[in-house]
Amino acid sequence: MLDVYTQIASIPIGYNHPALTKVMTDPKNMCSMILYCVIPGRCTLLTDSNPRINGMKSNNSSSYMTGGFSRVQTMACGSCSNENAYKAIFIWYRNKMRGTPEPTPEEVRTSVINQVPGCPDLTLLSFMGGFHGRTLGCLATTHTKAIQKLDVPSFDWPIASFPQLRYPLDQFERENAREEARCLEEAEDLIVKWNQKGRHVAGVVIEPIQAEGGDNHASFDFYTKLRGITKKHGCAFLVDEVQTGGGSTGKFWAHEHWGLDDPADIVSFSKKMLTGGYYQKDSFQPDKPFRIFNTWLGDHTKNLLLTEVIKVIKTENLLDQAKRSGKVMLEGLYDLQDKYPHLLSKARGIGTFCAIDVKDEDTRNLLLLKARNKGVVLGGCGTQSIRFRPALVFKEHHAHLFLDIFNDAITELK
Amino acid sequence: MLDVYTQIASIPIGYNHPALTKVMTDPKNMCSMILYCVIPGRCTLLTDSNPRINGMKSNNSSSYMTGGFSRVQTMACGSCSNENAYKAIFIWYRNKMRGTPEPTPEEVRTSVINQVPGCPDLTLLSFMGGFHGRTLGCLATTHTKAIQKLDVPSFDWPIASFPQLRYPLDQFERENAREEARCLEEAEDLIVKWNQKGRHVAGVVIEPIQAEGGDNHASFDFYTKLRGITKKHGCAFLVDEVQTGGGSTGKFWAHEHWGLDDPADIVSFSKKMLTGGYYQKDSFQPDKPFRIFNTWLGDHTKNLLLTEVIKVIKTENLLDQAKRSGKVMLEGLYDLQDKYPHLLSKARGIGTFCAIDVKDEDTRNLLLLKARNKGVVLGGCGTQSIRFRPALVFKEHHAHLFLDIFNDAITELK
Repeated sequence: MLDVYTQIASIPIGYNHPALTKVMTDPKNMCSMILYCVIPGRCTLLTDSNPRINGMKSNNSSSYMTGGFSRVQTMACGSCSNENAYKAIFIWYRNKMRGTPEPTPEEVRTSVINQVPGCPDLTLLSFMGGFHGRTLGCLATTHTKAIQKLDVPSFDWPIASFPQLRYPLDQFERENAREEARCLEEAEDLIVKWNQKGRHVAGVVIEPIQAEGGDNHASFDFYTKLRGITKKHGCAFLVDEVQTGGGSTGKFWAHEHWGLDDPADIVSFSKKMLTGGYYQKDSFQPDKPFRIFNTWLGDHTKNLLLTEVIKVIKTENLLDQAKRSGKVMLEGLYDLQDKYPHLLSKARGIGTFCAIDVKDEDTRNLLLLKARNKGVVLGGCGTQSIRFRPALVFKEHHAHLFLDIFNDAITELK
Repeated sequence: MLDVYTQIASIPIGYNHPALTKVMTDPKNMCSMILYCVIPGRCTLLTDSNPRINGMKSNNSSSYMTGGFSRVQTMACGSCSNENAYKAIFIWYRNKMRGTPEPTPEEVRTSVINQVPGCPDLTLLSFMGGFHGRTLGCLATTHTKAIQKLDVPSFDWPIASFPQLRYPLDQFERENAREEARCLEEAEDLIVKWNQKGRHVAGVVIEPIQAEGGDNHASFDFYTKLRGITKKHGCAFLVDEVQTGGGSTGKFWAHEHWGLDDPADIVSFSKKMLTGGYYQKDSFQPDKPFRIFNTWLGDHTKNLLLTEVIKVIKTENLLDQAKRSGKVMLEGLYDLQDKYPHLLSKARGIGTFCAIDVKDEDTRNLLLLKARNKGVVLGGCGTQSIRFRPALVFKEHHAHLFLDIFNDAITELK
């Protein structure tokens, strides 16, 4: 099988990489493997508590990695990462409003029984089509499919439109710029209005590319301006890199493409990082221990594997590899949509993080099946898109192989 | 060090048990260790997808284990387990209200934007002093310490009093029975009132012993009657065994002590089970795939370890061991509180799941420190309790050793 989906973008360097086998057969790692530990050191700096991961920061000239962030909080999965990042945002915002981290006796009393002011009526702004996880807090910011949210109580929080760009991008520059301006204006209006009615917007959460929602892109200019709006209104800016992070866009984090000095307050991750977690600015570290905590806070074994993955990414220059393979992929997808314009459209992507639309959902699902029967594993997203999520070891010849088989699968549709 | 806390009750059979080392050095398990997989089979029956775990059910005559439940859903941690169990309850309740799992177009439309009726205004009833996790959904049912909830938006859901029993129990039988009756009446009143105002109580969530909240016990009769109330009013009954499950009470699940034929609709677990998850009745299995889902749904490596843990529990008769060691522990604690009545009170417990109260919080914390300096790791809970959470391999001689050192630590307080 040629896996161009990799367990929903979760296999960073392919199956059974010898470097990872070595980590797991190293007797000195046995202790991590057979028990979970509560390691309080993990609550503070990963960079302090794990010098091998600290190495990622200081030596990792080819990627952003921890750049700009001095603190990291590990968690077991993407949903827990966002849930706890949301908590960090709310705590930060309330401390700012109060002018002190010390709560009033009334806040202490009411917090235990879920009432204001202890449990304040703060909100997070999210975007239509965004996906940030499936636990109750995360679900309140997830707006992709009804099946994920139906029947589950939620928070009434503001939701802004995400730009619906027209393709090919170079033919619709003016329309797309207008669409992005509209969405930015809407987001800012929502922040102002919700603040005015006392339901303050503590933070804005967004993906650099809406993945589950259909590989929806917006321009770097859109993200730059949105970052500006959050600063203007004192909202935290959380960039959810659970699916985009880890190198497949050709940079370690997709938000590096924006080219900003201060792209985010918090960056959450999981999937290719093998452990969940989030990087945060110092100011988002809660003022007291046990405000952000759980029994396991992730799994140290995954940190050991991640350390090795980072080494392999550097040694094998896999970020450059993703750029090269991505170029073959995207050019091949452009060719295919030219060849089958009645079937395919909107080929798009950065690095190997590519997608293409199929004319309708049923045809998309049939194409996924036909590709699977020919030995290529693919995944859908949105209503009618196919997303491509190969591992970082996916090389140019894999891209060519994939394109050939994909073409064969398409011809069977006609 | 003698560990009587075990990473917050998370080490089932002690550190470095050779059986676990064997699992992790078995080459055929390597694949599980070096990558997370999305295994759709896990979404259905663990008993189907993992015959080794199925073996736990059919052969495990000495423990309840999966008894009564045909379905299990694994998750990565305790919070995710409860979050998803809550979702399963809400979905079940709405399907019951609607009379069909098929949503209306209006429900489909509104669910994506967090509005009723798609995201209904359902509630869960929880108890003061209960702890069910720290993500936003779980936090809405957690009522232990302000520091865990402060500044985080929550759901306005009903909260009932948990019985505050007086000790020694045999001297306050009448008062305690009255207190439990009061709490049961309050819980039922809340269900009736919240149902009447249209904010239906879909489920009741409770621990068999409130652990984080201070090792608060209620009688088996209390739980039996509470189970009856949930049936009467059509609420799901979720028993959170994250801390109590896995054998330390002398039965595999603490709720087995109640002796009921139908003790729960859902039982959530984590900690000693090494993987998070929950057992559920067939009717709580969502009607469609991907309603309960995430990328990893736990970690298969932990399932491999759990399988081995269960074998060791059976082979070494560790449930009986917990009863015997617990007897030594509890009798020793009774002796100590008789010896130091100005310092200690309310010795209590089932199996090795024991606790004792210290006269105030500062003295409790000092005693924890003094014990630690003498080589015994202990943990606090509630405002002034010490909880004892040894591993299942904790034997009578460990209990005696612990009691001697604990006595020495106490004498230093005087």
